[in-house]
Amino acid sequence: MRPLILISNDDGLDYPGLQTLVDIARELGDVVAVVPLHHQSGKSNAITILTPLRAFQVRHEAGLTVWQVDGTPTDCMKLALDQLLGGRRPDLVLSGINHGYNAGISTIYSGTVGVVLEAVLRHIPAVAFSHGDIVRDIDFAPCVPHIRRVVERALGHLDALRDVCLNVNFPRQAGTVKGLKVTTTAIGHWEQEYDHRVDPHGFDYYWLQGRYVSDNPDDDTTDLYWLERGWASVTPIQVDQTVRQAMPAVAQMLGI
Amino acid sequence: MRPLILISNDDGLDYPGLQTLVDIARELGDVVAVVPLHHQSGKSNAITILTPLRAFQVRHEAGLTVWQVDGTPTDCMKLALDQLLGGRRPDLVLSGINHGYNAGISTIYSGTVGVVLEAVLRHIPAVAFSHGDIVRDIDFAPCVPHIRRVVERALGHLDALRDVCLNVNFPRQAGTVKGLKVTTTAIGHWEQEYDHRVDPHGFDYYWLQGRYVSDNPDDDTTDLYWLERGWASVTPIQVDQTVRQAMPAVAQMLGI
Repeated sequence: MRPLILISNDDGLDYPGLQTLVDIARELGDVVAVVPLHHQSGKSNAITILTPLRAFQVRHEAGLTVWQVDGTPTDCMKLALDQLLGGRRPDLVLSGINHGYNAGISTIYSGTVGVVLEAVLRHIPAVAFSHGDIVRDIDFAPCVPHIRRVVERALGHLDALRDVCLNVNFPRQAGTVKGLKVTTTAIGHWEQEYDHRVDPHGFDYYWLQGRYVSDNPDDDTTDLYWLERGWASVTPIQVDQTVRQAMPAVAQMLGI
Repeated sequence: MRPLILISNDDGLDYPGLQTLVDIARELGDVVAVVPLHHQSGKSNAITILTPLRAFQVRHEAGLTVWQVDGTPTDCMKLALDQLLGGRRPDLVLSGINHGYNAGISTIYSGTVGVVLEAVLRHIPAVAFSHGDIVRDIDFAPCVPHIRRVVERALGHLDALRDVCLNVNFPRQAGTVKGLKVTTTAIGHWEQEYDHRVDPHGFDYYWLQGRYVSDNPDDDTTDLYWLERGWASVTPIQVDQTVRQAMPAVAQMLGI
């Protein structure tokens, strides 16, 4: 029996990144894609609580079913796993290919990554893919062999991905994927984050922008370090943010 | 000079949880509260990218300034730090008090926690507070001495909170806070997540609900374990989700 591969993203249906990933996955298994109805940039692990969700099946043929859901990427995953797959458990979850990096601290704001975190907390193997360019017409051809390799290897080693998922990014520079590197997430933050403007009525408004400041730009283990040098990064991540080694110091701080 | 305390939440201005936290903070420092204009449950670390933000100053008196921002909790933090504080860096960031647990896996969906993650990635000390009850009129009186203790201790040990922030939860049971425990995040997931209904026109819709399934219900280090037993939990968390110990296995899996 062919493996069942569940795919989502944050850009929605009509994006070349999604199409590329679906095409690769269809070579390797039966595919169900459940994607947001509307563009969902920067939605992190957001979920819809106060309003109900709708789901629309827009394609159904041998080996491929496609749904749109009027929610976030995490909503898509939850509704797929609970309802739309009819109780089947996917062998592998894929997310992307996102148009734009989900590397460094962007990881925590990413709906593309939210998809795979929702999978791994159920111990379903999952891989997120993102590309450094944000234009619509990215040439994904240099990435395809690497994506196929990662998906094939993941399908062949599902037990290695029960407690971690993979966050894969491809470098912005066209045609120069030197290979895959296993990396850590670069930590940092943005500065000068808002472009403050005044509207024609004299009221203030603020556009998100920003200049990224890395905590450790010379650390040769990080995703951003290798992406800047033309490599694709593969970072194993998980959902637990507990800092166990800080627990004694916190207890001492609290006097307990 | 009195410390500058920046406060946000995900419920917005008109909630007893926020009022309680502001009252405690005002005893200990100058307070700026920057909160969402609209209710923002389950927004995680979501950010607003495709539309600009507006900010409305609704109160300004000695020791207390209050703003509303038409975005997510993370938007509130980013706009406060970049624009609304006029370049001042807060000594401490507080979030909440949320009406509803942000313990266990809920942590990753929580805008209340998103606030403190946004602080700690800039190395600003930060504490999130949540209460297990979801009603509006929670009696916070049993929590107040514990909150005051945590805030006072945090202000007295700011350097201990440069790379971790604290996620504090109070037990649902009224009047029974036995004390503070330093804990880990309980990992698990929800099942039976949607209530599937049919509208009067014959179309399907899905309400989020769910039954929580813990991976490790007997682990006596977790937040949920102690909350169920009437204690408040204090979990040190951070933003980096990299699983360093999985890196060799991932490299082997990929054949690199």
